[in-house]
Amino acid sequence: MADNFADRLISKMFEKKSVVCVGLDPNIDNIPKEITDQVYESYATDAATGEAITEFNKGIIEAIKDIAVAVKPQAAYYEKFGSQGWRALERTVEYAKSRGLLVILDAKRNDIDETCKNYAAHLGIVKLVGGLEKSILDVDAMTVNGYLGSDGIMPFVNACKENGKGIFVLVKTSNKSSGELQDLKLANGDEVYKAVAKLVEKWGEGTEGEKGYRSVGAVVGATYPTQAEELRPIMPKSIILVPGYGAQGGAASDTLPNFNKDGLGAIVNNARGIIFAYKKDPVYNTSGQYKDAAHASAIKMRDAINDALRTAKICAW
Amino acid sequence: MADNFADRLISKMFEKKSVVCVGLDPNIDNIPKEITDQVYESYATDAATGEAITEFNKGIIEAIKDIAVAVKPQAAYYEKFGSQGWRALERTVEYAKSRGLLVILDAKRNDIDETCKNYAAHLGIVKLVGGLEKSILDVDAMTVNGYLGSDGIMPFVNACKENGKGIFVLVKTSNKSSGELQDLKLANGDEVYKAVAKLVEKWGEGTEGEKGYRSVGAVVGATYPTQAEELRPIMPKSIILVPGYGAQGGAASDTLPNFNKDGLGAIVNNARGIIFAYKKDPVYNTSGQYKDAAHASAIKMRDAINDALRTAKICAW
Repeated sequence: MADNFADRLISKMFEKKSVVCVGLDPNIDNIPKEITDQVYESYATDAATGEAITEFNKGIIEAIKDIAVAVKPQAAYYEKFGSQGWRALERTVEYAKSRGLLVILDAKRNDIDETCKNYAAHLGIVKLVGGLEKSILDVDAMTVNGYLGSDGIMPFVNACKENGKGIFVLVKTSNKSSGELQDLKLANGDEVYKAVAKLVEKWGEGTEGEKGYRSVGAVVGATYPTQAEELRPIMPKSIILVPGYGAQGGAASDTLPNFNKDGLGAIVNNARGIIFAYKKDPVYNTSGQYKDAAHASAIKMRDAINDALRTAKICAW
Repeated sequence: MADNFADRLISKMFEKKSVVCVGLDPNIDNIPKEITDQVYESYATDAATGEAITEFNKGIIEAIKDIAVAVKPQAAYYEKFGSQGWRALERTVEYAKSRGLLVILDAKRNDIDETCKNYAAHLGIVKLVGGLEKSILDVDAMTVNGYLGSDGIMPFVNACKENGKGIFVLVKTSNKSSGELQDLKLANGDEVYKAVAKLVEKWGEGTEGEKGYRSVGAVVGATYPTQAEELRPIMPKSIILVPGYGAQGGAASDTLPNFNKDGLGAIVNNARGIIFAYKKDPVYNTSGQYKDAAHASAIKMRDAINDALRTAKICAW
């Protein structure tokens, strides 16, 4: 039995005095020209895109490794490029882990039973043809979609228990139209997102670590602080992954309702606002120093959230 | 503007007098030993699993190409193996297309806005670093999850319109626990699955082909014929992808409520019951003739559904 994911995440938070997660969403249109030019010239065309993504991510990881507790690669930006993109994802995950960061794969996967077990394989070692076992992704946690019910979640929960991993179930997503389905009112008075939160509370049973938190968490967008206030007590021991900070409009104070009174229980993600911070600042944009810009932006985010937690008198460090 | 997906699918159905889709879920534990032994000896260990999957799929594709209208590779079975699995998926898709089959990628993807566009890239040509354009998957259709609302669907719908592709939105899935969320009763009297069906009806506007069907379809499990009866009139022009036939318990007659009076509007999937049919039959199991078994099983399924359609007096051919 490996160490509990929630325990590992909380330890990292105390070690770094930070709840910052950096989203690795490497939109190739925004990767600095120095990187794309270099790899395009020095590698075979077929691998250039994967190389550019990997090089860019390595730079970001070095820039934020002392400030963030985790990185969150968004699978779509990798698998768009097929096998070379997945190779970039594998290398990115390996690199991030080697630099002491936890890795949350943002894949929003969902399927049932036997098929679901194959997605859950990302949370562990994979058995190949011939019986060889190999670490392919072996990430610390994944995002998953609960629309299919327990059949689509329990294979992930089992992987959490067996391998010390975590999942974050989509409850109330950060986007504008998330309410079209998630906010529908049920006959019992709950909204759909609350029904999902209650399922999360059930699915997470038995995944508590020594620090009292569970390895089955939830996704609640920073753009919906009012809903977060309702959701926090429904899943008191779940860690909430909060996207939507920064570029999508969420401020530090908007993330507060996702925290418990102990100042724990939430991890806040920012992708574009950190990894492409260089594009917003004329100084960095001219120099191409995307790493410096990412470093500065991650510190700013860490401090803004810590300040908000302190003002609310719930900072844990 | 490429040909409309719904038109292409219906043409294939008339050409083959079949609504059969073969699920390519290559669980490596069930791939015949002749294939795994061979590739394990003749290829580098790191690629053996991907090779075994590809070789197996090619055999299945040859066996069913005259009987099925489409194949449905289930992404989980490929991406479990990372980049080598994705390479196998790319080669499988390419091979299936070269044999005149439509390809529906069963990926149940979902994300928002910019990120979602990256998943929607599977429905077309991908631009690489340096500006080169490449066909990576370029499948005919994908399954998607609508929990995130329009922000998570419209990028796919746009790809459908621009590239002549299709999507199938999860409405009522075939698994036992699908009701935990999907069957919840809303304040307006609908179940959640009906609310999703009404969204599908909205999302599909403007995707009609010349034959009257839309390229935005739905997934409704063969295991829920009663719900299918309710759902068919809510999305009259959508093509329903029906999983759960065979191994999961759905019979030919159970698929009927998904069809319209014209005998069209549904495509029925079977994975294990066809691709691993050899394991159920002692004759084929001993000989390892998995292709013969798949061929026979696909014919049986095609004929069983055609017979059910004829009995219901709605067979289109």
